[in-house]
Amino acid sequence: MNKDLYYMKEAYKEAVKAYQKNEVPVGCVIVCDDKIIARGHNLRHNLKCSLYHAEIIAIKKASKKLNTWILDNCVMYVTLEPCLMCSGAIVQSRIKKVYYGIEMDRFGCFNEALDYFKHKQNHNVDVEKGLMKEEIEELMKNFFKELREVKY
Amino acid sequence: MNKDLYYMKEAYKEAVKAYQKNEVPVGCVIVCDDKIIARGHNLRHNLKCSLYHAEIIAIKKASKKLNTWILDNCVMYVTLEPCLMCSGAIVQSRIKKVYYGIEMDRFGCFNEALDYFKHKQNHNVDVEKGLMKEEIEELMKNFFKELREVKY
Repeated sequence: MNKDLYYMKEAYKEAVKAYQKNEVPVGCVIVCDDKIIARGHNLRHNLKCSLYHAEIIAIKKASKKLNTWILDNCVMYVTLEPCLMCSGAIVQSRIKKVYYGIEMDRFGCFNEALDYFKHKQNHNVDVEKGLMKEEIEELMKNFFKELREVKY
Repeated sequence: MNKDLYYMKEAYKEAVKAYQKNEVPVGCVIVCDDKIIARGHNLRHNLKCSLYHAEIIAIKKASKKLNTWILDNCVMYVTLEPCLMCSGAIVQSRIKKVYYGIEMDRFGCFNEALDYFKHKQNHNVDVEKGLMKEEIEELMKNFFKELREVKY
């Protein structure tokens, strides 16, 4: 299996964990020297703190594992396009490349934030998107369908 | 003393703590119902993780204190204009108003981020700046002067 696809599948598994906990299903892994060094899934509601997006949890674990705030040898795989907070956290931690599965019209703004604020940053991040697009879209669709059914 | 000035002085005290730990001197307090419920100062180098900006530390503590991720009854006082990550975290946690002391040309982008991404957010944040401008500028200047003297 393609290596990038393998890592995105692991991020997808994390997203399923969030789904099972009634969280918006977003999952993330961080890879360094061809090893997964950190995993995270969205836990905002469960942990009652807006900071606990998948990416933030994974960045915290990766920093602890490598004992540094500089993650410039790390690649992130995340199922959903990062929000403004996570985009900033990725730049702050100097992650070198991000693969994300699908865009999110409502809150996703990774490409736009990188582009718009490039004059403010001292670090560039490579980006690729689209890995496992169909599966991730299906998972998101199911989650929001169930949410609507519960709500109304 | 003016209430807002009092809270910014408390944020300044936090910034001094960061300064004493050789961190970029940024400090923050979060106020709810006229009480300081959370404090934070920059600890990125000491804790070896890029997430530990003053604002993030304070948001985490405030969420814990109030037992919710929704901080829409809270006001933040922070000595320096928030970076992209912290701007996103403030929006995510729905803080209602932010007072910041001084702008930071290099990384600060709070007003710009709020303005540029307002179509992506479901929450508006009020902003005021300039409280304790001279004292905070002096603290920052001293920090970077000392840093240059050590480095060269």
